[in-house]
Amino acid sequence: MALDSKTTEFKYIGTRPNRPDGLDKVTGKALYGADTFAPGMLHGVIVRSPHAHAKILKIDASKAMAMKGVKAIVTRADFASDLEGDDWDLLENVMAGDKALYDGHAVAAVAATSQLLARDAAKLIDVTYEVLPHVTNVDEAMKPDAPVIREGAANYSVPEGMHPNVVRHTEFGHGDVEAGFAQADLVLEKSYTTEAVHQGYIEPHACLAQMGADGRGELWCCTQGHWFVRRMCASLLGIETANLRVTASEIGGGFGGKTTVFIDPVALALSRKANRPVKIVMSRSDVLRATGPTASASMDIKMGMTKDGRITAASGVFRLQGGAFPQAPIETTTMCAFACYDVANVHHVGFDVMSNRPKQAAYRAPGAPMGAFAAESMIDELCRELNLDPLDVRLKNAAKEGTKASYGPTYPRIGLVETLEAAKAHPHYQAPLKDNQGRGVASGYWMNWGGETSVSLAISEDGTAQVSVGTPDIGGSRASMALMAAETLGIPYENVRVNVVDTGALGVNEPTHGSRATYATGLATIQAAREAITKLCKRAADKWGIDADAVVWEDGCAKPSGPNAGEFPPLSIGEIAAEMGSTGGPISGHFEATPNGHGGSFGTHIVDVEVDKETGHTSVVRYTVVQDAGKAIHPAYVEGQFQGGAAQGIGWALNEEYIYGSDGRLQNTVFLDYRIPVASDLPMIDTVIVEVPNPGHPYGVRGVGETGITPPLPALANAVAAATGVRLRGLPLSPPKILAALQSKSDG
Amino acid sequence: MALDSKTTEFKYIGTRPNRPDGLDKVTGKALYGADTFAPGMLHGVIVRSPHAHAKILKIDASKAMAMKGVKAIVTRADFASDLEGDDWDLLENVMAGDKALYDGHAVAAVAATSQLLARDAAKLIDVTYEVLPHVTNVDEAMKPDAPVIREGAANYSVPEGMHPNVVRHTEFGHGDVEAGFAQADLVLEKSYTTEAVHQGYIEPHACLAQMGADGRGELWCCTQGHWFVRRMCASLLGIETANLRVTASEIGGGFGGKTTVFIDPVALALSRKANRPVKIVMSRSDVLRATGPTASASMDIKMGMTKDGRITAASGVFRLQGGAFPQAPIETTTMCAFACYDVANVHHVGFDVMSNRPKQAAYRAPGAPMGAFAAESMIDELCRELNLDPLDVRLKNAAKEGTKASYGPTYPRIGLVETLEAAKAHPHYQAPLKDNQGRGVASGYWMNWGGETSVSLAISEDGTAQVSVGTPDIGGSRASMALMAAETLGIPYENVRVNVVDTGALGVNEPTHGSRATYATGLATIQAAREAITKLCKRAADKWGIDADAVVWEDGCAKPSGPNAGEFPPLSIGEIAAEMGSTGGPISGHFEATPNGHGGSFGTHIVDVEVDKETGHTSVVRYTVVQDAGKAIHPAYVEGQFQGGAAQGIGWALNEEYIYGSDGRLQNTVFLDYRIPVASDLPMIDTVIVEVPNPGHPYGVRGVGETGITPPLPALANAVAAATGVRLRGLPLSPPKILAALQSKSDG
Repeated sequence: MALDSKTTEFKYIGTRPNRPDGLDKVTGKALYGADTFAPGMLHGVIVRSPHAHAKILKIDASKAMAMKGVKAIVTRADFASDLEGDDWDLLENVMAGDKALYDGHAVAAVAATSQLLARDAAKLIDVTYEVLPHVTNVDEAMKPDAPVIREGAANYSVPEGMHPNVVRHTEFGHGDVEAGFAQADLVLEKSYTTEAVHQGYIEPHACLAQMGADGRGELWCCTQGHWFVRRMCASLLGIETANLRVTASEIGGGFGGKTTVFIDPVALALSRKANRPVKIVMSRSDVLRATGPTASASMDIKMGMTKDGRITAASGVFRLQGGAFPQAPIETTTMCAFACYDVANVHHVGFDVMSNRPKQAAYRAPGAPMGAFAAESMIDELCRELNLDPLDVRLKNAAKEGTKASYGPTYPRIGLVETLEAAKAHPHYQAPLKDNQGRGVASGYWMNWGGETSVSLAISEDGTAQVSVGTPDIGGSRASMALMAAETLGIPYENVRVNVVDTGALGVNEPTHGSRATYATGLATIQAAREAITKLCKRAADKWGIDADAVVWEDGCAKPSGPNAGEFPPLSIGEIAAEMGSTGGPISGHFEATPNGHGGSFGTHIVDVEVDKETGHTSVVRYTVVQDAGKAIHPAYVEGQFQGGAAQGIGWALNEEYIYGSDGRLQNTVFLDYRIPVASDLPMIDTVIVEVPNPGHPYGVRGVGETGITPPLPALANAVAAATGVRLRGLPLSPPKILAALQSKSDG
Repeated sequence: MALDSKTTEFKYIGTRPNRPDGLDKVTGKALYGADTFAPGMLHGVIVRSPHAHAKILKIDASKAMAMKGVKAIVTRADFASDLEGDDWDLLENVMAGDKALYDGHAVAAVAATSQLLARDAAKLIDVTYEVLPHVTNVDEAMKPDAPVIREGAANYSVPEGMHPNVVRHTEFGHGDVEAGFAQADLVLEKSYTTEAVHQGYIEPHACLAQMGADGRGELWCCTQGHWFVRRMCASLLGIETANLRVTASEIGGGFGGKTTVFIDPVALALSRKANRPVKIVMSRSDVLRATGPTASASMDIKMGMTKDGRITAASGVFRLQGGAFPQAPIETTTMCAFACYDVANVHHVGFDVMSNRPKQAAYRAPGAPMGAFAAESMIDELCRELNLDPLDVRLKNAAKEGTKASYGPTYPRIGLVETLEAAKAHPHYQAPLKDNQGRGVASGYWMNWGGETSVSLAISEDGTAQVSVGTPDIGGSRASMALMAAETLGIPYENVRVNVVDTGALGVNEPTHGSRATYATGLATIQAAREAITKLCKRAADKWGIDADAVVWEDGCAKPSGPNAGEFPPLSIGEIAAEMGSTGGPISGHFEATPNGHGGSFGTHIVDVEVDKETGHTSVVRYTVVQDAGKAIHPAYVEGQFQGGAAQGIGWALNEEYIYGSDGRLQNTVFLDYRIPVASDLPMIDTVIVEVPNPGHPYGVRGVGETGITPPLPALANAVAAATGVRLRGLPLSPPKILAALQSKSDG
């Protein structure tokens, strides 16, 4: 698809109107997952394993079932019994079968007439366990004597002789790494670790399920993608997908963690058994123990550099702990680690390792931050040793159009150089530092995504337009779609209403994930609007008695063109719409496709920290995000994405971590113990939007949601190293660790 | 559109599976208008005028507003102030302005935290009225000294010198009526009356409205057509249509009475003022007093017939009382009165007359039953006088393909003759009668309707299909659409889910009215399925590397055809759907149009009654409906429509009527006093489905919902005349009237 000629001259795109859902959200009118009700509704509560690894010998629900008000109890036997592969894993995670595989693993659920009753009943469900040895650390889990999470889970591609907990393996690269290292003036080889962290979305999972005795059901839930939910739940319940209708509520954050299901199939199974609607709302503790945090990682990086900063070779081994089921994001970790650079000799090895933890889920640029932490820390270490400017080194090695990417393909037009140049030119980069302060930089990458997309756009009788989309609005996508529809149709932003419709009202849509919504749903919106314009022009042509090709669409009006120009006064969209019933019927435009012209987005971050050498506490004193948006449809929400990515990355870098005790139980299950950044932890995060248009989108959009979380981990580590002179290669950079490192340095 | 060649050989169409919404409805899972809730929801109650006609001098809401828990009070000032024409009428009916125009007319509304509180508050709203003289009868309202309902409401087409309560007029015909009467052997001229009756839908109107401070709103309501509701409410509130999203709940009957708005704009206005969701649920008394019963009628018919039964001329004057606002269905009354017959000389005059009653609304074949009552009673009177068989006379005069209809157009293929022949051949017509029993017959017509229609059909990942329609399912239309989609796609009925989606998810749709749903939504469903099939075939062709034209669709599979036949094994819809994400994206089909190939449906009814000469009570002892369905998609629901039409017609004929006291107040405001037929009042109603395919629908559908209420009124009157020897020309044929007529006959 050719870049639209309008790319540089927009009327609505690039403006900053209020988001359509904004007022609803600040006034409390918006309905989230827990905000809906149904007559006769029951409340569901899930019984969870207190053990990290245990055989389930017996579940005695008789006492609970005898309680007045208890209407249904489900265990694994109430779900489909014929699943295999990913669907089996999904079901096993949603409801344990023979074994509980992590602290918090669901083993049964009860529905009762009140939540209090359901909680009491849950306590009366008597589960007999045989506790087994457990392992929660990725390196421990790979050792020969580690407990086996599950036999037979390993993929055929895993090298022989590895522990059965290693379930998947990837290996790729190009060039000759050893020859590359030989060309280097300095080769370093270091190991890095990151901890599992949670997306920390403000809204816990919640749903309301209603299954009929005819096997048809409805589900209201908070999700990033209700077609995914539909497919997963239908599979786990053994019903046809079209027979389940899923409505996405407003969503209080997802960041990838709401692209799978946890409670939804359970609520449906309870509803099916009780023949009444069932609501389940997770507690924060449930969310932390039993949803999908990201994988933790243990990584070895080897990199060679010439004295003038040319990277001659890079290799990495990335071991990701993804919980009790396969699917840690080893592909994206390896793909993104060295993706910013034009490296002739590069090699990647990835291992997906199971442990007695909840199955990891996607978290904003899933997998990329870990790889970036290792690779970008390493570049910083090399720059320090060789006394080179880290931005100059990145500019020297930066990937650009035509570069063979570290993961194989040849880059089309990309914007890394532009972000590096903008960062270098930014006043922040030259600003003086105070005592105990240090500056770090890092770059990062996310390839973005297209994905299956269906959009319909309907013209109303008064010439306003509504857009039906299937991607829940997390970061302002209704506003972005409305801007693109308004721009294309030539009508005011306020005259477009964007509706996130249920799965029963539109063709398949992938979730709002992979930074795809503004790109793919946007592209679909523009194309649907163009189809509607074609029909609008046809109506005008029919009225004028001229050929449809002789009509152009400008400023929300059909106008005769060519030989007929000026012959008839323009017909506005409102005038055409008012008569549409009698001129051929309703006017809509539609678009269904899997767009694949998404363009990757690169970013470069600069951060200044101040480390308190007495407490080990790190303050972020200045932060600047520079990132390529392709085209910023709504700049304020693009900036919000940049800031949000940075904020989450800062949390991951400085404080957040899943802490498991020696008993295999999660020790920090509330936000008082699991430390995400609060407003007072952060400075105002500055943003610079770079716009290198993506040729795969009519208006140049790339997608901006994910790249921003990739550079903060290494940028913070590099800044702390600059401030303290000590290099920490394990996240988080928490005060005790920094204190210990400072101590060890002064001891040394 | 050519009739599909498959018309005679169907796999699914013509079968009788359970309706998809059936189980939900019998188990109570289905959500009707009153069955939804929103957090913080208020309850609205409407203050209604106790006077039939009164100036509103003052509304003092201060006491009510001071009550704890009262959150908003609205009056006319809270609605749009710039409306004209029909929109002004609509608003005036929804909320009175300067005057209350009928008993029950809304004058204010209050929203409070409970319904009890709202009711108490409503009583505290102090309205000062100046009572004016009123008129509720159509003939009285036309008299020179009748009170004027509203100056300036009359249409320009009203003949000069008529009372201002006569607001519209229609006059048309063809041939030379006087010459026609001169050719007759017998000319009769009689007057007939029918009373206003209510649709008697089981579910009172209910809605839940939520308006944001940004002027965007959502409405959940029980309606036959949510796009109509959207347009009307947006207009009354002064917002853009696309900014209001309306969801249709399940609906407990409508029969035309739920194609307009009463409480919905009020709930939205209360919500806008209170900034909280507001629910309003009508009581039965509210429904009877203040929704839209049908018009009452006063009619003069003159008809001439030869000795052998040829109708030589017919003329009619039809005066319809439509309540306090224009729009009594004079067009359809006049169009349908003589529509069954090939009459060379015919003339119609219609008057739309206002009175101090609620504005009439559509009721099943709106207008047609009154005209049919008069015309078909007249034919029966002529037959009796001339000693002719009433079915033979109808057959002799029956309209057929090529006949110039009484209302102008030339009929395409129609099925009246077939229904008359089937009635004549039916055992019922020859069955012996007992003492005090009589048999009546009558025919009837409804032209059916196409209307604005948007449908989308999406293929799910497992090859099941979902159809998004905008016509609420009243009489089983989900089943009909599923059958047509299944037939077209070649997949099982159970694999199609039909969803009635909200206005935010689809292009404009007219309501489920005019018997249009199975015809127009069905046609759109078939065309959408065909578009999907074209895409499915393309995917198969791409996979096989052959031309898309060389692929045919059979039994739910793509198959290579022509030179490629047999070269590749068939690809099922499930196999193509499983890969659609990676072969081009989601697959959907869409259809938007205003189909105009609807075909009229004729019916002929036979009824036997037994009249108790001591009490005047009429029992219906046998009833047979014969009607042309075109093609019965789901015969059981077609039969249900036939039976339902007959049952409502029987009620209208025998018992139902709006009874106003001399004070202008409705006297029978509950179902104990307003007498609709109950099960014990009716025999099993036999049905005969005639199928004369409509060439304007791919599978021959005509639409069956309305014709069935047209013949019962005259059929019953004719049967009572046969049983008693007395002719009643005013409905209802209630016991006191029959007793009085018998008395007067024996006195005579």
